[in-house]
This record gives sequence, C-alpha cells and structure tokens, in this order.
Amino acid sequence: MRPVWWDDDDAAVALIDQTRLPLAVSELRYHDYHDLAAAIKTMKLRGAPAIGVAAAYGVALAAVQSRAADTATLQHDIEQAIAVLAETRPTAVNLFWALGRMRQLAARLAEGSDVVAMRVGLLAEAKAIEAEDDAACRAMGVHGATLVPPHANILTHCNAGGLATTGYGTAVGVIRAAHEAGNSIHVYVGETRPLLQGARLTAWELQQAGIPMTLITDSMAAYFMARGEVDLVITGADRIAANGDAANKIGTYGLAVLAHAHNIPFYIAAPSSTIDSAIANGSHIPIEQRPPTEVTELAGTRTAPPGVTAANPAFDVTPARLITAIITEQGIFKPSFDFSAAPPQPLPAGGE
Amino acid sequence: MRPVWWDDDDAAVALIDQTRLPLAVSELRYHDYHDLAAAIKTMKLRGAPAIGVAAAYGVALAAVQSRAADTATLQHDIEQAIAVLAETRPTAVNLFWALGRMRQLAARLAEGSDVVAMRVGLLAEAKAIEAEDDAACRAMGVHGATLVPPHANILTHCNAGGLATTGYGTAVGVIRAAHEAGNSIHVYVGETRPLLQGARLTAWELQQAGIPMTLITDSMAAYFMARGEVDLVITGADRIAANGDAANKIGTYGLAVLAHAHNIPFYIAAPSSTIDSAIANGSHIPIEQRPPTEVTELAGTRTAPPGVTAANPAFDVTPARLITAIITEQGIFKPSFDFSAAPPQPLPAGGE
Repeated sequence: MRPVWWDDDDAAVALIDQTRLPLAVSELRYHDYHDLAAAIKTMKLRGAPAIGVAAAYGVALAAVQSRAADTATLQHDIEQAIAVLAETRPTAVNLFWALGRMRQLAARLAEGSDVVAMRVGLLAEAKAIEAEDDAACRAMGVHGATLVPPHANILTHCNAGGLATTGYGTAVGVIRAAHEAGNSIHVYVGETRPLLQGARLTAWELQQAGIPMTLITDSMAAYFMARGEVDLVITGADRIAANGDAANKIGTYGLAVLAHAHNIPFYIAAPSSTIDSAIANGSHIPIEQRPPTEVTELAGTRTAPPGVTAANPAFDVTPARLITAIITEQGIFKPSFDFSAAPPQPLPAGGE
Repeated sequence: MRPVWWDDDDAAVALIDQTRLPLAVSELRYHDYHDLAAAIKTMKLRGAPAIGVAAAYGVALAAVQSRAADTATLQHDIEQAIAVLAETRPTAVNLFWALGRMRQLAARLAEGSDVVAMRVGLLAEAKAIEAEDDAACRAMGVHGATLVPPHANILTHCNAGGLATTGYGTAVGVIRAAHEAGNSIHVYVGETRPLLQGARLTAWELQQAGIPMTLITDSMAAYFMARGEVDLVITGADRIAANGDAANKIGTYGLAVLAHAHNIPFYIAAPSSTIDSAIANGSHIPIEQRPPTEVTELAGTRTAPPGVTAANPAFDVTPARLITAIITEQGIFKPSFDFSAAPPQPLPAGGE
C-alpha cells in the first residue's frame, strides 16, 4: 500500500483519500498542483514524510503541467508551485526539506539542460525521494526493533504508519519490524482526537498486518501505564530541532510526560528529513492551529452546542529531556542529542 | 435545571435525557423502577450524586408501584428494587450510599407504621436526598471558590456540573461560585471521550451560565499546561477511599499526573456521600468496563474499522498524593487525608 505515488499512465499525482479511511479506500488523481496543495491542506494525505513525498510529486506535476518552452520560464513556474505547496502545512519540516531539494535540482537543471530533461529529472527526483523514504523506514524498523522487549505492550499515537510515509511507517515501521522478527507484541492505539488518525488509520494498518492491538481513547493511556500494561511508547515526529525537541501530533507531549512519570521509555522514530538542524530548539517550531470545527464536530456530527469556542492546536512539542531515544534510518540516537551537524537543506521559507 | 426529579402529578421519576444533550432537551418519565434502572445503566442520567438521587427516587417509585397491602411485603418489594438498582453502575458509591439510606428507612418504617406512611416517608426521604445534595453543592461552591485565584484559567474534565448533581454541580459548582463572586475566570473544558460529557454537557452548562470557556480535546491538556495557561484543575469524583484516593471519569488520573508535573494544583470537589470510608484505598474501587462500541463509534458513526478490539474502562483512580485538596460540603481537606471516621452507610453490597 502506497499513500501517494506518480501515475505514469495518467501523468498525475495519485493518493488514497485518508479522510475516507477505513470505511472506504478511494483513490484520487491530481493533474493540477493547486488541487494537490488543497488536498494536503485538508489532510486527504497527511503524515510528515508522506507530505514531503507528495510535495515533491507536486513540483514534478508543476513541471509537467507547465507549457514553458525554455528552462528559465519553467524554473519560474516551478518556483510558483513551490510557493503554493509551501503554504499547505507549517509544522512538518519534511515538506520544506523536499521542496528545497526539488528547488535545488530545478536550479541546477535550468542551467545546463533543456525543458524535457528538467521535467524528466524532477520526476525522477520525486520518485527517488519516495524510494529513499521507504528505505529509511525499513532501516528505522531494523534499528528500532532492537529496542522492543519480548512480548512488549507498545503504545503509539496518531498514525506514524505506512499511510504517513511510503507504505511501511516510522513508529509503525518499528512495530512491523518487531512483529516480523517474531516478537509477539501487542499495541495500544490511541485514537488521536480530533481527526482520529489512530482509530481510523493505525488500527486499520495493524489489523491488515495481523498485529494484535487494542484501541483506546487518548485519555486512557495513563490508566494502562499505571497498571504496568505499557512497556514503551513510540511515535513519529513532524519536526525535530537540533537539540532533539520534537514536534508531533497533539497529545504526544502529554504521553511523554506520563511515560516519564511511570518510568516507561519514550521513543521517536523519524527519517532524518524530519530533522531541522537550522533551529536550536522546539520553541522555533510553528504550531499549526486548525479549524475549531474539527473539535466541535466528529465525522460531520456536531457534538458540542452551537456557538462554543474551541481550540485546535494540531501539534505539540516534546522536550528532548523526555525522549529516551530518537530512531532514524542512520541508527539510534540517545541524549544528549545534537542534530546541528549534517543539516538537510530546508526551504529558507521553512514555515516560521 | 434539575437532571432528575419526582413528578408529583404523574407519580413518576422524571429526568432529562443526557444522551440527547445538547442537541435536544427532552424529558423522560418512569413509572417502573426497572426502566429507570435501565436508564441509569445506559447513562441517560449520569454523574455520581445524580445517580444517588435517581436511585433514591427509584426506591420511592418501587414503594408507590408496589401493590403490597402490609409493610413486610412492601419491604420485600423495596429490597427487590434496591437489588436491581444496585446493579446499574459499580463505581460511584453515591448509588450504594443512597440505596443504603433508603433501605434503613424502609426497615424502620416497616416496623412501626403502615404501607401508606412507608410510601410517603420513602418519597420524602428521596426528596430530602435531592435537597441535601443541592445544599452540599452550594456549600462546596462557597468553600472551593476561595481556592480560585483572580482571572484563573481552570481546567475541568467530564461533567461534574448541574447535570451530574441536582442542578448546581460539584467541580462546576465551584466554577459557578467563583464566577458569581465576580472572579473573571476562564474554563478549559476537556471533551471527555468516549461519551463527550465535557463537550456535550459541561460546555452547554457553562454557556448557559455565561462563563467564558474553550473546548479542547483531552489530548490538548498538557499543551495548555506547558504554556502556563492552566492555573488549576478541578474535577468531581465517583468514589473517594478513606485515604483520599479518588475514582473519577477515565482521563482524570492522567490530568492529575500532568498537573503534578507542571506544578499546577489539582482539586476534587465531591459531596461526602461520595466518600467510602469502608475502603482503605483506591485499589478496592471497582472500575466499570463499558461496551467497546463507545470507543469504536461516535454519535452512531463508526470511526474504527470493523472487527477492531477496543478497551473502555469508564473510570480511573487518582492516588491521594496527586490531590492538592478535596472540597466537600464540610470544607476543604488537605493531605494527608483521613476519611475513615464518620462513615456514611453504604449498602453492604457496595459494588465490589
């Protein structure tokens, strides 16, 4: 299962509509990058690594879509597309990382090649970004599985699964790898209000993979921790600062505090494209505020009285001191973290 | 607004159907205590003190409903009703406290009076239990409001409001009293999955009272605590052990841990009918496990894939060491708590 891919026959970006999962598995195809940007904004596709891959394909789509006859004009059109795609989601840095990488290649190809080579090169780069993410997730799985004790009860939050990446997953990738290695694990899946990515997406993925799981509301995590029924917590991340502070789906920080209070290890699994070496700590990570209706309604049903004020921060930041280890494709990092070296190349606009 | 009352004209127990709030305010009337017991079980009425009042009215209803011509037969019928009503919800001790009080009176009246006097006496006792709860809530408000700093941001969970009691509320009663005293407070209302008593009931009550509030998902509490936007947490309780350990709606324990980690005071407001002096600590409190469909569905809409396993513990226990103070109608109690004296008279069957 791939959440986003390039449809060669149709010259379109294809994705699975995650707002309709698990009740329906429906594919969407985009021939215009503006429509793809709207789909990312409304979370038809979500998950930091998957957003990066989709944005890269969006740039490739803009290149194919453009009627430019010379490389300078094509580069201009591509820059416009990058600006539109950069406005979709502010928190996940993978978006800016992928756009920065596509921009660099476009600039290089605009100098020494023609428009056909530019289009082909940009599409190949987007496909490479997808392939690299899959490899990174599998490497994270290999590394992370060594941290999972036999028969572990694992708590995860939101969907850091195949749907958030390129099919295998980051936190769920570690869970998959442990399961595939024969470790008889069991997973507590936090439903992840407001948009229920845990209930809708992670539960569905684990069910398909045959991994034993129990769905819980987010408010039940502490109850199971106190009973000794959680051996480790593992989540993904949307942006990791140089000092290891990590932004992830709202609720993650609370789980990290609870894990710390119960002496339970708290892990983050994320590809190095999630690391933003340019920021010293988590205070520089912009937190997306989403529409209050996501809190006052559920699946189209109003749950709160009309006129009620609601807040909807989509992410929180877990300080490095609460993180036992960060798992990337390069290995397992333990505190104190220092991700200031070997920076990726984020788009300077970087969402701040 | 009263969530449950005796309808004199109809000789029936009346209640507001809380499963339909806030979208509809509909009244239900019960002429048979079996139906009332079913309504308590399915949470058409909920909240520990309100359950106690409803159960007392249920015993009065059984007395009125019975065709017994002598006091011994009437007492037998009443014992049967008590057994049925005791089976509705295991965690809130107010249920067993109220049933125990009604049983004692029935036994006393069976000795020295006739069936008419028994019926009248039992109905008067149920009305007294309702009136006493209202007085207790208002007294808790007076005591508790002294703990609320000026302009405080208050976080509450579930509905410890008028709907959970006899119109004024325990935790919400303290909030009301602070507001009525002119303190310009603001309340964060945790939505309280799975049944959304915060979003549906507390938000509605605060809106009607004109108290400024913001609805959040349960997973957002830690985010606002870390930002310094929560000055105190206050909840109700369903059962308080002799040492101060307190059972309350699932998610309360997690909030207490989070409050402790952020140096935020954590208060419980509950009438002394919530105290179970017969148990030394919280490990003896039975935790109700409710149907998994409450987690896999929301307002009739399925959110998780079919076949998914879900857990649904309805309560958790907050250890006394995490509780800054317990507010009852008798005053403010601080650690170390000792509620082993002056025990109420719970039904020996006490739910364990």
